[in-house]
Amino acid sequence: MYTIDLNSDMGESFGAYRIGNDEGIIQHITSTNVACGYHAGDPMVMDKVVRMAKERGVAVGAHPGYPDLMGFGRRKMVLSTDEVKNYMKYQIGALVAFTQSYGLKLQHVAPHGALGNLCQYDREVSRAICEAVYEIDPSIRIFYCAGAVLGQEAQKMGLKTAAEIFADRAYMEDLSLVPRKQPGSMITDEDLAVERCVKMIKEHKVTAITGKEIAIQGDTLCVHGDGAKALAFVERIRKEFQSQGIAIRNFL
Amino acid sequence: MYTIDLNSDMGESFGAYRIGNDEGIIQHITSTNVACGYHAGDPMVMDKVVRMAKERGVAVGAHPGYPDLMGFGRRKMVLSTDEVKNYMKYQIGALVAFTQSYGLKLQHVAPHGALGNLCQYDREVSRAICEAVYEIDPSIRIFYCAGAVLGQEAQKMGLKTAAEIFADRAYMEDLSLVPRKQPGSMITDEDLAVERCVKMIKEHKVTAITGKEIAIQGDTLCVHGDGAKALAFVERIRKEFQSQGIAIRNFL
Amino acid sequence: MYTIDLNSDMGESFGAYRIGNDEGIIQHITSTNVACGYHAGDPMVMDKVVRMAKERGVAVGAHPGYPDLMGFGRRKMVLSTDEVKNYMKYQIGALVAFTQSYGLKLQHVAPHGALGNLCQYDREVSRAICEAVYEIDPSIRIFYCAGAVLGQEAQKMGLKTAAEIFADRAYMEDLSLVPRKQPGSMITDEDLAVERCVKMIKEHKVTAITGKEIAIQGDTLCVHGDGAKALAFVERIRKEFQSQGIAIRNFL
Amino acid sequence: MYTIDLNSDMGESFGAYRIGNDEGIIQHITSTNVACGYHAGDPMVMDKVVRMAKERGVAVGAHPGYPDLMGFGRRKMVLSTDEVKNYMKYQIGALVAFTQSYGLKLQHVAPHGALGNLCQYDREVSRAICEAVYEIDPSIRIFYCAGAVLGQEAQKMGLKTAAEIFADRAYMEDLSLVPRKQPGSMITDEDLAVERCVKMIKEHKVTAITGKEIAIQGDTLCVHGDGAKALAFVERIRKEFQSQGIAIRNFL
Repeated sequence: MYTIDLNSDMGESFGAYRIGNDEGIIQHITSTNVACGYHAGDPMVMDKVVRMAKERGVAVGAHPGYPDLMGFGRRKMVLSTDEVKNYMKYQIGALVAFTQSYGLKLQHVAPHGALGNLCQYDREVSRAICEAVYEIDPSIRIFYCAGAVLGQEAQKMGLKTAAEIFADRAYMEDLSLVPRKQPGSMITDEDLAVERCVKMIKEHKVTAITGKEIAIQGDTLCVHGDGAKALAFVERIRKEFQSQGIAIRNFL
Repeated sequence: MYTIDLNSDMGESFGAYRIGNDEGIIQHITSTNVACGYHAGDPMVMDKVVRMAKERGVAVGAHPGYPDLMGFGRRKMVLSTDEVKNYMKYQIGALVAFTQSYGLKLQHVAPHGALGNLCQYDREVSRAICEAVYEIDPSIRIFYCAGAVLGQEAQKMGLKTAAEIFADRAYMEDLSLVPRKQPGSMITDEDLAVERCVKMIKEHKVTAITGKEIAIQGDTLCVHGDGAKALAFVERIRKEFQSQGIAIRNFL
Repeated sequence: MYTIDLNSDMGESFGAYRIGNDEGIIQHITSTNVACGYHAGDPMVMDKVVRMAKERGVAVGAHPGYPDLMGFGRRKMVLSTDEVKNYMKYQIGALVAFTQSYGLKLQHVAPHGALGNLCQYDREVSRAICEAVYEIDPSIRIFYCAGAVLGQEAQKMGLKTAAEIFADRAYMEDLSLVPRKQPGSMITDEDLAVERCVKMIKEHKVTAITGKEIAIQGDTLCVHGDGAKALAFVERIRKEFQSQGIAIRNFL
Repeated sequence: MYTIDLNSDMGESFGAYRIGNDEGIIQHITSTNVACGYHAGDPMVMDKVVRMAKERGVAVGAHPGYPDLMGFGRRKMVLSTDEVKNYMKYQIGALVAFTQSYGLKLQHVAPHGALGNLCQYDREVSRAICEAVYEIDPSIRIFYCAGAVLGQEAQKMGLKTAAEIFADRAYMEDLSLVPRKQPGSMITDEDLAVERCVKMIKEHKVTAITGKEIAIQGDTLCVHGDGAKALAFVERIRKEFQSQGIAIRNFL
């Protein structure tokens, strides 16, 4: 029997601004990564997403990012490790106020955007994030992109981890994601995307953008919630997984 | 035997900007109200203040305010009660990440600035603040200005409270503070300030700006940390309290 | 012959967040009110809107608001008149950098949201806004909601003005807009909306929400750019105006 | 006869936060670099500084930076050149609203902090800044650190320039400033600082931190306004320059 967690970034709206179809996507996933007000999200949005997660039995994780709303956390900022650590604590704590209000435990932390990308190779930044999590509550799990040093650092510190794989992103041979600006970075063919997901989960293999087949191990699959076809795609993934004997469940 | 808690607003620095003499004041108080990043404060500052509080055995409280850094939270904003409630949760949670990291429990919540002023008479806003606190953790205490409806609403909800009195502010007959812009709003004569404090604590009376003596009941005395003479004044208060048989302790 | 200017709020996107169909609406209007980065908008968005306005011969105006991105400038903030004045200057100047870059002159200033609502009756705030405009460039026109004291204050100061009327909003008998939260605030029946517009322009009359017919005088008609039917509605307005002998032009 | 402009960063206060002694320093300088609200400064502060500059006959320049108030613009952000260009326009325009209100012309633009450091060697970013200035008004001068590629790019574009030298900073052999975190980065010996200034101006030479004497050419000397001794040091510089036959004047 195979199992996988299905996660999606949510709570990225801000004030009058809407991003993503949170109400729709949450029907189909098992874990949600909630923006915490620095690169996206605000307290009203956070409250709403956590309430929906509670109603649907979806596990809540924090999705902290750089303090850069104008850049949606996608622009690298050169911060000290102390800054990273404290910015993480601030955002995680802010979200925990909402999970606690709804009687939920925070399941995980998954760094967002440019900060997340840095965790692919930067051990100091990865450690700063892990320390923030560890000092708040060592039972919180770290989500890391399959192959990222963040996973290794978290495990060294004794934190639980989950390797994240992506349904619609192309991989380099070193398991880093092909940058969004590069051609071929997104898997737009849905048949192919579903097929790749199944192969990653059952055979632990994926075809890199170079054509070479590489090893990959995933515990949680990220599906995207913005874009017109997002919802239909998630529904399709679920059906396919069911017929392939892949159980979908989170880590609670 | 008389007892009083001595509190001060702290953690109001932001990035390269410094306000207050946190290192000095924390030597002399028993509770600190820590800004939470909306009207003042940032994660680096919050970490530092909570660490100092831990070292000195000072109890930590949250000092949440309006999301208005440019106005230092001193300008009234017309928010919905839902907005107030969620903004409180966000800020309180953010601070709890730091207290929890240092093995401390959050002692109290004391609303800041224009939001705090609103709690003098606005029952809906007061309830929104109390609900935020209650839903996060009903054992957190509410600090309210003596006479403010916030205290009544907190007590109705079953929250512990502490009435706050001010060492250096003049009172109206209804116990509201004389607005800062009005002449006579600050008690600048230190002898008088100390004398008033002792009388409020031992006789439960204070002379209003009108000259009339009014009843007042205080559990925690607020001393200010910015201004050149702040430190000397706090030291003097402590000495005077000692000689008057007034014990200084917090609510932990 | 009747003439009217057709304006719309634009440039309200921010970073990764999109609001409105600027590319579509700009094809059909003669003046645009551009958000200036305080309640909405950012430099990338401002540059894009001004460039499009240049290409389409649309006149550019500033749409400054409260420094409250989280509230989209729709929440009242209690500011001093000095603060209002300087916040206006800042935002107007920021936009002028872009109009100047494209060889355009700033046509007008139209205050946004809760600040705009205040201009209905608050003479001090209205004067502060007019002073900001006057001191930067006294040839900039003030857009004011028909009936607002802002218009009177601008005229006293010698500024050019244009009274703004709304295609899809219901009026109180005193010409103030029916608040959005009240039932009947929006004219959702398009036939009725178009008919009302024509009557306001040709007969200077409108039926208030009370049923009473009141006098109204408009120089510029505001059409909204967000919402699915916005574009179709503007196109329809243009056609109807053409057949009714109402010329559409701005104030340049 | 030798001449030099004396400049200082000002307007770095924000809301309730104060940095620098603007009132004091402005008595002694000929040009001021005014923060524009992104990394420091706000409209109230900008208005005050420009008014003081007007009263004292000091030339006003813009000191734009990264949109990072929490980091005071001192942390590198990876922005696209379009973002840099438009962020510059926004900030410069915002300041021009104030200079224009006081009947002043903007003399110059001097990029701040980490953005300024990037101009030492990054030609693309330098060009983006120059384009922003050129498109707003090609008569605005660019201040660049002596040796920075920003100067070359500005000159290629036909912009007027001024090379900035520093009274209290140590130089590398390539004329870049010794980073603040490195020992010896600041010239704390005032006698030495004054001596170095005179030598840079009269002999076009300075001793690098390596001990090697290198060529340097400066048109404007930067003095710092924060720190306790700032004022006394500027006064001393002025006296020494007078006795050395170095005239102090700006570029207006």
